[in-house]
This record gives sequence, C-alpha cells and structure tokens, in this order.
Amino acid sequence: MQRRKFIRTAGIGTAVAAASGAVAAPAIAQSAPELNWRMTSSFPKSLDTLYGGAEHFAKLVAEATDNKFQIRTFAAGEIVPGLQVLDAVQNGTVEMGQTACYYFFGKDPTFALATTVPFGLNTRQMNAWLTQAGGEQMLNDFFKGYNVVGMVAGNTTAQMGGWFRKEIKTLDDLKGLKMRIAGLAGDVMTKLGVVPQQIAGGDIYPALEKGTVDAAEWVGPYDDQKLGFVKVAPYYYYPGWWEGNAALHMLISVDKFNALPKAYQGILRMAAAETNNWTAAKYDADNPKALRSLIANGAKLQPFSQQILEASFNAANEVYADLTAKNANFKKIWDSQTAFRKDGVLWFRVAENTYDNFMARQSAANKL
Amino acid sequence: MQRRKFIRTAGIGTAVAAASGAVAAPAIAQSAPELNWRMTSSFPKSLDTLYGGAEHFAKLVAEATDNKFQIRTFAAGEIVPGLQVLDAVQNGTVEMGQTACYYFFGKDPTFALATTVPFGLNTRQMNAWLTQAGGEQMLNDFFKGYNVVGMVAGNTTAQMGGWFRKEIKTLDDLKGLKMRIAGLAGDVMTKLGVVPQQIAGGDIYPALEKGTVDAAEWVGPYDDQKLGFVKVAPYYYYPGWWEGNAALHMLISVDKFNALPKAYQGILRMAAAETNNWTAAKYDADNPKALRSLIANGAKLQPFSQQILEASFNAANEVYADLTAKNANFKKIWDSQTAFRKDGVLWFRVAENTYDNFMARQSAANKL
Repeated sequence: MQRRKFIRTAGIGTAVAAASGAVAAPAIAQSAPELNWRMTSSFPKSLDTLYGGAEHFAKLVAEATDNKFQIRTFAAGEIVPGLQVLDAVQNGTVEMGQTACYYFFGKDPTFALATTVPFGLNTRQMNAWLTQAGGEQMLNDFFKGYNVVGMVAGNTTAQMGGWFRKEIKTLDDLKGLKMRIAGLAGDVMTKLGVVPQQIAGGDIYPALEKGTVDAAEWVGPYDDQKLGFVKVAPYYYYPGWWEGNAALHMLISVDKFNALPKAYQGILRMAAAETNNWTAAKYDADNPKALRSLIANGAKLQPFSQQILEASFNAANEVYADLTAKNANFKKIWDSQTAFRKDGVLWFRVAENTYDNFMARQSAANKL
Repeated sequence: MQRRKFIRTAGIGTAVAAASGAVAAPAIAQSAPELNWRMTSSFPKSLDTLYGGAEHFAKLVAEATDNKFQIRTFAAGEIVPGLQVLDAVQNGTVEMGQTACYYFFGKDPTFALATTVPFGLNTRQMNAWLTQAGGEQMLNDFFKGYNVVGMVAGNTTAQMGGWFRKEIKTLDDLKGLKMRIAGLAGDVMTKLGVVPQQIAGGDIYPALEKGTVDAAEWVGPYDDQKLGFVKVAPYYYYPGWWEGNAALHMLISVDKFNALPKAYQGILRMAAAETNNWTAAKYDADNPKALRSLIANGAKLQPFSQQILEASFNAANEVYADLTAKNANFKKIWDSQTAFRKDGVLWFRVAENTYDNFMARQSAANKL
C-alpha cells in the first residue's frame, strides 16, 4: 500500500519537476492500475471444483499483480442467478463471469460447442482444438455478438451417464423414461423416446425419490456424491456420451477487457489456462475416491450397452444434420470440431488408448 | 521504455522531496524489477514443440510483466550442452533451464519420476498427481538437494514404441536386439534380452541405416517424422510403454527464485502451467497429421503384442523392486505415484476409457 502512495506522490512530484511528468504519470497508472472486478459464477459454492476454479483464478490474478487486480467472486444467485451469467456480463452488471456456455443453448445452439456436445471431443482434444486449431478464435468471433471475450478455464473431464432407478438394458427401456437432462443431449434423447426434464440441481433428489423422474445426470462421482442420488437411483451408468469433456469459460466484457493493459490481459489468459489445468486435475484426483465410496454405498456401476451407444450416436448425427442446415455459426464451428475429432481420435487409437487399455487390464487383474 | 525512465526520475524526485522517498523508491524497484535471465534448453530448435515451449514460456512472462522480466532462451549446445542443464542451473551459469528430468537418471534414478517411468501415469494422471496429490512438493523436496526449484511446463503425451528394422512378434525377437533406448526403460529392456544403446538424436538415422542398431525410440509421429526413420526402419510400434506421458520441467535456481518478488514467482508458475497445456495441445494437434503422413510414406504401424507388454510390465516391476529397496527418495515418490496410479486407472476405466474406446470404434468403422 505504501507503493501506491508513492506512485501518487511521485506523479505529482515529476509533474512539477519536468514537463514530461504529466505524461509519464498516467503511463504508470495505465500499466498497473488498481482494479476491483466482480465475477459471478453459474455454480454454487458446494461445487468446490467448479466454483473453486473461480476462486483459484482470482487468487492467481491477485498474486501476479501484487494484489492490484482484485476479482471478487460470487456464487450462483448471490448477485446474479446461475443461468444469467452471460446476460450479466453482456449488460455490464459485472465485469466477468464463470460458466459453462452450453447453458445459453436456448439463445443459440452454437454456445453448446464451447462446452461439449454429444459424442464430441474428449478433454485433451478440446484443449488442442481450442488452442491449436483455431477453436478459441472461432468461438470468440461468435461471442463478439454478445459483447464478451471467452477464455477456457476448466474442464469436468468425461462425465458419467447418470443415475437410474431401474436397469437400462435395451433401447426399449429408454422409451417413455423421464430423465433430467438438458440442451442438445435432451434433443438426442428425445429421438430415443426419452422425455427430457429440466430440473435445477437442488430439486433432483426429491424428484428421483418420489419417482417424478426416473433418471438424472449430473457430473461425475465427486460432484454426484454430494447430492446423494445413490440412495434413490442406484444404477450408475457410464459413459456420459453427451459430455466426453465439458469446458468451462470465463466470459469477460469486451470493453472491460480491451481497456486493460496488455500485461493484465496476459495475466488473465495465463490464469485461465492454469485454472483449466487445475480443475481437470482436481477432478482426476477426487473422482476416483468418490467412485470407491459410491460403490461402497450401493452404487451399481453399469456401462451403457453398445446398442444404446450406437443408437445414441446415430440420433446425435440426425440432430447435427438439422442444426448445421439451419445455423451457419453452428455449422462453421461443428465442421471444425468434427474435422479435428476425426484426426484426433485416429491418433488416440494408437499410443494413448492402447496404453490406457493395457493399464486398465492390469487394474482389472488387480496388478496395479 | 519511457516508463522505466520515469520510475528512475521519480525515485530521485521523491528522495529529494520527502524523507520517505528513499525507502519508497527501492520498494517499487523490488516489486517490478527489470530482469534479464537466460534459460538453457535440453532440446534443439528443430523440436519446435519442446524448444517451442521454452520460447512460448519466455513470451508469456515478458507479456505479463510489461517486458520487464526478459528470459532469453538458448537451444541445446548454444551455451550449455543439452544434458548439462541441471548442472548449469545448479552452478549458477544460467538462472534457469528447460529439460526432461529423466536425463539426470545417472545422478539419481529419482529424477526419472519427475518425467515418466515405464508403465507410469498417463498425461492427465501426471498433472493430477503433481498438482493435487503432493507430487510437485515431493519432487521439489528432492530437487532442493540440487539447488533448483522445478515446475512442470510441458508434456509429450503418450509416446510411440519406436522404429524397428524387422517385425517384433514374440519375446524371442527381442533377444539380442540392439535398441537406442535410455534410462530406466533400458534397464527393463535388458531384462528382456535387448541390448540398450545410448545414441544422440542426430546419430540415430545412420546407425539404423547401417544396422549398427536394430531399433530406436524417439518421441511420437510429429518429432519422429523430422528424423526420417521411416526410410530405414519402417516397423513403427506402439505404445511406448516406457513413456505413457513425459513431463518437461523448468528448473530454476533456488536463490534466484527466492529473490524474486512474489508477483514474478506467480507469473513464472502460471507461465509454466500455460506452457504445460500448450505443449500437450500442440502434440495432440500435430501428431495426427504426422501419423497420416508417415503411414503414407511407408510406416508399418504395429501394436506390441500382449505377450511383450505383459513381460515388459513384469520386468519393470522387478526393476522397481530393486530401486525401492536401494533408494529411499525413489521409494517415497514411487509409492505415491503407484497409489495414485491405482486409483487413477480405476477411474479412467469407467467414463474416460469407455468413451474413448467407443469413439475409437466409430473411427475404425469410418463413421467420424
């Protein structure tokens, strides 16, 4: 704090001492200004990997700027409802927000491509598409229409397929099933005869308990455990083919971002990238323990059958055919993602999957 | 540059104007000093993902500090030989270095655990172990003995098993095989009858051409392509079970690091994390294209047989039994990694692998 006082004093001192002082003082003020921003999140505090990423990000920015750039984080509903993060940033209510862009699927389905779509990229492929294959640029061209700059800053990694009250053995078991599932995945499920339901996180448990819904998807073991679904819908299916990864974004007001000194812009980008690492790593560290605990508490772990996965894949392709025919933004970005997916999966089939599958066999044989 | 001049002028101005000025001026100098560091790399410029990571890191640090913290990068051999990076940082010849710590396996095999070991963690698991399970702290406790601070700052992702002049169908085909392979993997290979050879990158091609060696491993498609092995040893095996991931490190002189302002320390850590993302993403984006091109140019892609993988896994466990009995540092860190591997692989078997394998089948069926 002594430093700030010094800068102010110095600014006045040189303005008096030399003609150039009046110019130089604002130059310092611009290069490392003291800022107080607000970040509103789509997530509650209880989701300490998702909301924890917002806090982690703010801490990194403060540290790298000598506490000059402070970002105060707010959980969903504290100042802005969880699903209105985009509006709040766009309107200037807050400088920035933390969210999963697919929540804004209703405004334009293109938003889903910023997070994840059924049978989309896995976590590593998403990061590579974003940073190396023009993905981030394409998304930001689209985000411009909403006056926000987006930076990827977290990933849930591959999610689970959710909790079911009964076993799902064949496609027939899906017909008429009421499932809490949203967005594009809901559209795909509809083609399989599922009746998608929109239910907020806190209302899922009673709905499953009463049988108002037959199934619900949430995230993965670590987050799911907190909601206690295992007690009322013990069949725990995998994989969540609608979320092979799920990227989180920091959305920042374009005007506020452009007004920042270049150094602060760089620090925000680095903090986002570090938080991207951190969040995925935290899930990778916490999910295994939670899965063990869920199984000990009665979760019946089941893979979706190949029949169901194949039918879902085909249904998803029908949804994509519709969307790409209607929406040029969606088509442009989805074409880029599918081109990347084609090559990316081909490569993963070689070294990555073969390595992982060998290790998985050692695990199954109890040799690790 | 005008800013720096201003700070100096201002410092003098206030020293004259007020008693507190003399104290305040050094406070600014400390919080955002102008620094010129040198980073020496273990990698040549031609490896633009590995050495490119060093350049990327330096650019991020400059950007986040308004060009006040400049790090000049040097490729292997420019000022320090590629395999003497640790010595150069430890001795204070340079402030920092970029390397794969397993090159220092000869000093202590524990160094290998900072990069990768046969049948170790995959890329995501390595990041999670480092940042969420105390890995980074354990490694830095060990690095202290060498007067360096380490930060993970890149990953090659799962590597290939290398180039062979002849097909390797059974364990018998490995007996007496001369293979360019180093470190711990060489020790495991020895147990299978392979005769490991230490050959620098540039000398591998002529050795394979003349038949001085029968096989050589390097990295993966993108880096391997540059060395042209496909022409002289076309059998391209996978996976590189000795490098399920390979983490790169920035090693920084402890004294130099501790003398940095906290903000600069934070910026270095974030730049390392961003570079960690960037390097893996670049491999994930570039390897697929290189693999296609290698196959078009005659590479005969082959998986190692289950027999060979199983025998290698068992041989690796013998090597670990020896090392953990002899070396307490190795034991402590390897015990932590294997505990993490056990849980991590169990979890990957569920959502991640099942998702990846379904997508792999769609790729094999040409449906992507």
